[in-house]
This record gives sequence, structure tokens and C-alpha cells, in this order.
Amino acid sequence: MIITRPTLLVDEAKCRQHIQQMVEKAHAAGVVFRPHFKTHQSHAIGNWFRALGVTKITTASVSMAEYFANDGWDDITIAFPLNYLAFENINALAKKVTLNLCAVNVEAVQHLAEKLTHSISIYIEIDTGYGRTGIDATDYTAIDAIISVINSASKMTFEGFVSHAGHSYKCRNASAIEEVHATTVNKIKALAVRYKTQFPELICSVGDTPTCSVMDSFDGVDEIRPGNFVFYDVTQSEIGACTLDDVAVVVACPIVAIHKNKSELVVHGGAVHLSKDSIILPDGKLIFGRLAKLSDTGWEILPASYFVKSISQEHGIITIPEDSIPNFSIGDVIGIVPVHSCLAADCMGGYQTLSGKKLDHMKGAK
Amino acid sequence: MIITRPTLLVDEAKCRQHIQQMVEKAHAAGVVFRPHFKTHQSHAIGNWFRALGVTKITTASVSMAEYFANDGWDDITIAFPLNYLAFENINALAKKVTLNLCAVNVEAVQHLAEKLTHSISIYIEIDTGYGRTGIDATDYTAIDAIISVINSASKMTFEGFVSHAGHSYKCRNASAIEEVHATTVNKIKALAVRYKTQFPELICSVGDTPTCSVMDSFDGVDEIRPGNFVFYDVTQSEIGACTLDDVAVVVACPIVAIHKNKSELVVHGGAVHLSKDSIILPDGKLIFGRLAKLSDTGWEILPASYFVKSISQEHGIITIPEDSIPNFSIGDVIGIVPVHSCLAADCMGGYQTLSGKKLDHMKGAK
Repeated sequence: MIITRPTLLVDEAKCRQHIQQMVEKAHAAGVVFRPHFKTHQSHAIGNWFRALGVTKITTASVSMAEYFANDGWDDITIAFPLNYLAFENINALAKKVTLNLCAVNVEAVQHLAEKLTHSISIYIEIDTGYGRTGIDATDYTAIDAIISVINSASKMTFEGFVSHAGHSYKCRNASAIEEVHATTVNKIKALAVRYKTQFPELICSVGDTPTCSVMDSFDGVDEIRPGNFVFYDVTQSEIGACTLDDVAVVVACPIVAIHKNKSELVVHGGAVHLSKDSIILPDGKLIFGRLAKLSDTGWEILPASYFVKSISQEHGIITIPEDSIPNFSIGDVIGIVPVHSCLAADCMGGYQTLSGKKLDHMKGAK
Repeated sequence: MIITRPTLLVDEAKCRQHIQQMVEKAHAAGVVFRPHFKTHQSHAIGNWFRALGVTKITTASVSMAEYFANDGWDDITIAFPLNYLAFENINALAKKVTLNLCAVNVEAVQHLAEKLTHSISIYIEIDTGYGRTGIDATDYTAIDAIISVINSASKMTFEGFVSHAGHSYKCRNASAIEEVHATTVNKIKALAVRYKTQFPELICSVGDTPTCSVMDSFDGVDEIRPGNFVFYDVTQSEIGACTLDDVAVVVACPIVAIHKNKSELVVHGGAVHLSKDSIILPDGKLIFGRLAKLSDTGWEILPASYFVKSISQEHGIITIPEDSIPNFSIGDVIGIVPVHSCLAADCMGGYQTLSGKKLDHMKGAK
């Protein structure tokens, strides 16, 4: 494998293992597995899910739904507050696939209802504590108002409730994640009890990688929608959702300078390759990535004393232990384990497997 | 102009004005203008420079140089520590264009010298205080060692010194910027004095948008390489390099939710559209963008009390003044002035002018 420029390497075996584990977990728990494809955004990687029987997917935007519909996916939930301005694209999608949208207010549903030419289903997004979007789980007035608009629209069906417990990203151990999950599920369960008489087929859908990685039981939930688990990243390892060895992607970066006096390496690998996402470690240090030593068969995680200290548009500055300087030469290629793999993939716009095969990403496939 | 999804709007008139001003400034100061194309990464926008007589350009990577060489640019400096692993691409480029690379160590120059099949020029990058890359301006031993390798290589010519005073980005007013520039120029001048006897045609090249925007005289400098000025952004306005009205790009984002109780708007416009770059304002507030009201002819900057408070992959959360809530409706499209326009353009991978014309970006042109 010859690498001459920043390259997003993906360990196919690790990804397939993550997918299989989640498929099995969902099966054992008796819930539908509708993975979020915003992490990989790839037809090729989508096929790894398909090979394990996955038929329903989640996307983050209308254009991402279009990208996967074009590859034969025909049951798609767009887990983002519906943007009725895109009604022409929504109609075109609804004509060819089973399309589920998410509502967070009456206005958007009303506007869309007037424009629909094909049938869609609507979930109501519930905020179970993350505070980003969604209706408060006890705001029945708002929920009833949306359901009422859906009921009076000829091409809309009320499907159920979705929630994204994104506050699980603030957790740093399994018990904290369990607590977030328990709160989310309790709120969703209370809603299900309230609305199941009127809607016996109601679906309650949750999903974030931390809870789906840590929990085994999903009592009170019908569907899970994790996305990041296919790759994992430094953030998920800090949360406690995986180990660093589980992470299935690294950005391979050529070393272009070595600063012995500062114990620093300079690599070609910056914000346009990794994104500018960072994480603060328990010791208070802010980092833009961990490091890995590449080999012919994959990579090996380097200790925490190796880290990406800062990045600009194309440069990455890496701190390494003083005594490790002699181990590196100009022209070596080193792996950066991304803080946030979804964004690194979005920046890179394509993948290379360990056997050198190129895989698509929506951004690079334009 | 109908916008239904996140769209990077570019005000062509503002860009052309910025380009013209910099062309005129360089001409008046008697320096060569070699703009950095890493900000726009666009053939179409490159042509706006060409129309004003620009013939020499700067890029941040070999692939960016290839992108512009493919559009007829034939004098390119890659202002990044040379990555000899890419020697095949470097040779292909050097065969068709005048190619200048930057060296920060002997090893890379030596390795590349052995592989070159076509002639190139080499600048030595000098660190004048930024601390990212480059050789200390008084480390004559290191400089002489590189020059010696260049001199003994049959296909390499020593061209001069480049410097990027990136520490100007920490400035917050013109006099601080002037100070950074003065220090940089003094260091570069001292080098020129030392090496001009041996290399009478030596070129001293500097360039960052803050200094090139604020300074009028470039005594001791032969060439300037600013890039960001073509668009500017929130960061440059905070530095004092421009006003917010000068900024020539906004990401137009549909409003998908309004949270009255928190005085917040939720838009489709997140880290994959704006990047995760942020800036801390003088009042200590960390923001991911300022806001603009769109009109048919462009946009108008909204007060500082409107700002992007947080972003996730696709969501942007905007804080607005409590009493302005009635001015916004679901489905309105609002402009986000990016904190860092180079990264927003890289994320978006394409532009739309105010008259609706689509412009290319290297990332979207793959």
C-alpha cells in the first residue's frame, strides 16, 4: 500500500464486525435496526450493511436520502427537522421510496402537506434532554397539534416518535450512558402509553452510538438508529462507547517536517482532512486526534503522549515524546485517529481500504 | 433566487473589488502579487484574478496545484513543506508548469532531488515567529545546508525565502498587525542581505491576509501571497483586516425550527457546511458564525446579538434577540457569515452567485 498524500484508510474487517455486532444486538433485543448513514455516506459501505440483512436506513438530509435512494435503498428516515422548502425533492423521493420525515413544529408539516404529491410518514421528534431540537416529551399540546395536521393531510401518516439522546456525548462512562438512556426511554414510554390507543402501530425510535453501544436491552423501544459505531472515533472512546482499537478509520498523513527541539512532527493533514473538531481529555488537554503507527495489515494505536496538538487548513502539528523523535523520518506516513470520524469522512470525500480499494463518499461523488 | 438547502452564496462584485484592490496595492508597492488560491479553490473565481492580469498563483498542496494547472495556470508555488512522496505528481506538474516548492529541511530536498525528471525552483520557508513550520531566520547552518543540496542538484534552483506570518491572526488591531509585519520583514531583509551576493535574483515572499490588508508599503519584500482576502470572514473582521460588510460569502441556511422560549433558531447548516471553526469574541463568547439577512441583491449584516451558538453535523443553533423572534418564520432562509471562509468553501464544495450562477470548487469537482 503506497500512500503519498492524506488518505482516509478504512479497516473493512473492523467495520463489518461493528455492523454485525449491532445487527445481532438489535435482533436479540427485538428492535428494528435502522442505521444512520450520515457517518459513512458511502454506497460501498452501505453494501456491508445490506449484506447483513439491513433494509431500513436513516439519513441526515434530503440530498443524503437521494444519494442512497439512487443506490437502491427504499426505506429511508430523514432524521432532521423537515425542511418543507425541499418539497420537490421530497416528492420525487416519496415517489420511489418509503419516506419518513421528522417534524418539530406544526408550520413545516402544514406547509409540506399542501405540496405533497406522494405519501410519506411523519415522526415527531422528542427532546428527551439534549436540548438541540424536538418537542418536550410532556408538551402534549404541541404534539397533538402536529398529529392533528398529519391526520387531516391526505398524504401523511403519523408514524411515531424519534429521539436523539445527544447528551450521551457528554458522558464519560457506561453508567452515565445508562442513565441518559433510562431517562430517554422513560419519557418515550410515557408518550407511547398516551398515544398507543389512538395509534396501535406507533413506533418509538431512539439511537445514538453511545447508548446503542453500551446498552443490551431496549425495553420500550421499537427501533434503534446509531450511525457513528460503524467507524467509532476518539470521542466515542472517551465517552466509553468503544476502545481506541475499535476505531475503524485513520487519516494516513505524510510527515513533512520534524522539530526536534519542540518534540513535534508536522504532517500534511489539517482541517480540510480531519475537520476542526477537537476534544478535551480528562487531563484538560485539547487534542485534534490521537496517533497510530501504520503497518501493512492495519495500524496500532500509539500511547496518549502522541497527539495532534493543533491544525490549520492543511497542516497538522503532532506532539510526540521527546525520546521517540529518532523513530520518525521525513516521508514516513503516520495515522491520525480522528476525534470525529463522521466529519473526517465528510472532509475526505472518499476511502481506501487496507487492501488499496477505493470506496465512494457522497461528498467526493458529486 | 430560490434557495431550498444550504448554499454557499458568493458576492461576485465584492470579490472582484477585493481582487482589484490587492492588484492595485501590489502594483503601487512594486511587489509581485501571487495570490493564494486555497481559499476559493475555484477555476471560475481564479478567472476573476486572471481578468485583472494575475499570472502567478500559490496553492496549498500538490493536488490543488494540479487542479489549477488543469485550468491553464502555469506559474505555481506550492506553499507547503514539500512532500517528496508525491514525486510522480511533482514531476508531471514540473513538466507542464513553472513549479516552485518550499523546503523546511535537507532530507526532503535530498530525496526529491534524486527523483526529479524536470526542473523546479525551491524556496526556503522561514519561521518569523508563527512557530508552525519553517527554519528560524538566523539558523544559517540549516539554511546553508539546504542551499548546498539545491546547488548540487541538477534540476533544482534556489529561488529565495517564503514566510507566512500566521501569528498576525492573533492580532486584533492594525498596529498589532503592523508590528508582526515589521518583525517579519526585518528578519527576511537580514536574510536577503546575507544571501543576495550569492543569489542576486533572490525573491523574498510574504503573505497573509491581515498584513496584506492593513499594510500599504512592502519595503524589503518582492512578492505577496494573501488568499483569504478574496472572501474575508468573521475572523478577519475581528483581526481588523476588513469589516463584516466586506465579507463576500455567506452560507444560506433554511430555518427548520424556532424555539421562542430560548430565543433560538435551528437551521439546516452545520459542521459539514461551515466547518467546526469558531472564534472567541472580545466579550468571551465563542461563536461559529455571524448572521446576515438575505435580500434579492445580497445580504445585510445583523447585529452581534445574532450569532451561531453551536453546531453539530447538520444542525446550526442560532441565538437571536428575544424581541426579534416574530421576525422569523419556519422556511425563511438566513445567511451565516462564516468564521473561516476557506474552510466553509472547502466543506461546501461549490458556490452560487447572487444571480444564481453555479461556480466550481475543487472539492465538489472530483
